[in-house]
Amino acid sequence: MTVFAGLHRRPGEPLLLPNAWDHASAALLAARGHPAIGTSSAAVAAAAGLPDGRAATREHTLGLARVLGSEPYLLSVDVEGGFSDDPEEVAVLAGRLWESGAVGVNLEDGLGPAARHAAKIAAVKAAVPGLFVNARTDTCWLGDGDGLDTSRRLDAYRQAGADGVFVPGLTDPHRIADLVGWIGVPLNILYSPGGPTVPHLADLGVGRVSLGSLLYRRALGAALDAVGDIAAGRVPSGTTPSYGEAGAAARNVSVSRPANSAG
Amino acid sequence: MTVFAGLHRRPGEPLLLPNAWDHASAALLAARGHPAIGTSSAAVAAAAGLPDGRAATREHTLGLARVLGSEPYLLSVDVEGGFSDDPEEVAVLAGRLWESGAVGVNLEDGLGPAARHAAKIAAVKAAVPGLFVNARTDTCWLGDGDGLDTSRRLDAYRQAGADGVFVPGLTDPHRIADLVGWIGVPLNILYSPGGPTVPHLADLGVGRVSLGSLLYRRALGAALDAVGDIAAGRVPSGTTPSYGEAGAAARNVSVSRPANSAG
Repeated sequence: MTVFAGLHRRPGEPLLLPNAWDHASAALLAARGHPAIGTSSAAVAAAAGLPDGRAATREHTLGLARVLGSEPYLLSVDVEGGFSDDPEEVAVLAGRLWESGAVGVNLEDGLGPAARHAAKIAAVKAAVPGLFVNARTDTCWLGDGDGLDTSRRLDAYRQAGADGVFVPGLTDPHRIADLVGWIGVPLNILYSPGGPTVPHLADLGVGRVSLGSLLYRRALGAALDAVGDIAAGRVPSGTTPSYGEAGAAARNVSVSRPANSAG
Repeated sequence: MTVFAGLHRRPGEPLLLPNAWDHASAALLAARGHPAIGTSSAAVAAAAGLPDGRAATREHTLGLARVLGSEPYLLSVDVEGGFSDDPEEVAVLAGRLWESGAVGVNLEDGLGPAARHAAKIAAVKAAVPGLFVNARTDTCWLGDGDGLDTSRRLDAYRQAGADGVFVPGLTDPHRIADLVGWIGVPLNILYSPGGPTVPHLADLGVGRVSLGSLLYRRALGAALDAVGDIAAGRVPSGTTPSYGEAGAAARNVSVSRPANSAG
């Protein structure tokens, strides 16, 4: 089992995976003690002014992975649906991310055919066996949250080789505990401000808690709050890294861990 | 006088120029009513994991200007020292920024020879007369803040054609008022949490208040605060744009204002 996979299997201590949007945010989060950093496709797209899911977003995603993949933390990349309906093209993308140093990907079904998504997962695992594939279903995020459809999809993805499964939008503790009970691979839950807390999710047996675009959106909100305060003559409040801390974190962690060899 | 220049010359109402670091941050700041948006070279470099002042930072700066320059706000680009000691190369860069839609640049002397900086300013104004050149001296930022050196440099830059002058690190109200009294072009002050407030700077006659990397650093700090809260079971506080607001702001403002024609 890889180090990254092991972080999902510590009973009562899920991997809290913060999602960064650029080099400095990833570096500062890692410096706070997070061993693994995720990206957020929504944040990457918004930062670049691109719609989700387009070819240009694929290039930005690869570009960010190249920048972050050689840093001394474990990197998991959100690749939406792999930017293609062709499993082999998704496997090529996964291989490029692995070569950049990523140890995991997040691959979402977008409520498309379960068989197609399973084929993507199988193609990625065949091409890059060491890459942790977190298989996301959008039944609760985009759909009506039907429990039977969710279970059927997750089971298909697990059978296709997924190392973990992800159900963003699922916040009901009973359904979470039920899923943990039978799925057999680590369950990833998206933290939601109105849903269970991280300690509660830990008690439920969740393997990973990720934050999606929340940190990026909170970052944007803090910038808006700060400029409003400044305009009104108030001093902005909250943690503010110094110029040196932000710059040094971004520059100085470019060391050590070699990129993965091609899978 | 250009619209952007005019925003510097409203008595008692300086241009508050918030510095963005990407498309979404610029779009959301503009949506809050800011007619002009600046970039921060420190933020651009930290976001990309690059040291300030390198050739790669020049390319990132141009790339960001291409993304932001067609948006419906006035864009001023922080170009450090122009990424070259050759005035003609700096003028070429300025021309490319103008073609991307930028209406202003920030050009810093880095405490190098005043004559060289004046030559850069003159070259830029000759090549792109409509571009607002904000000439920055680093006497207070990198140096000992010597008043005579500051005055001598600013006077040389104004004579070379600078549309405005910028003294980051200058926070003493008496020196600010003195400079406003004789310099003859709008004075830009960098807001500092320990220095005069924006209303105070307005009373002192300042033409522009910019925020440098402060908003970006506060954004990073807010992300760190949020993940700490979430890990501890607390709900993060502060403004947090929704997924839709962040994404829509990044995508939907890609309209209207044509890029400037070449100067």
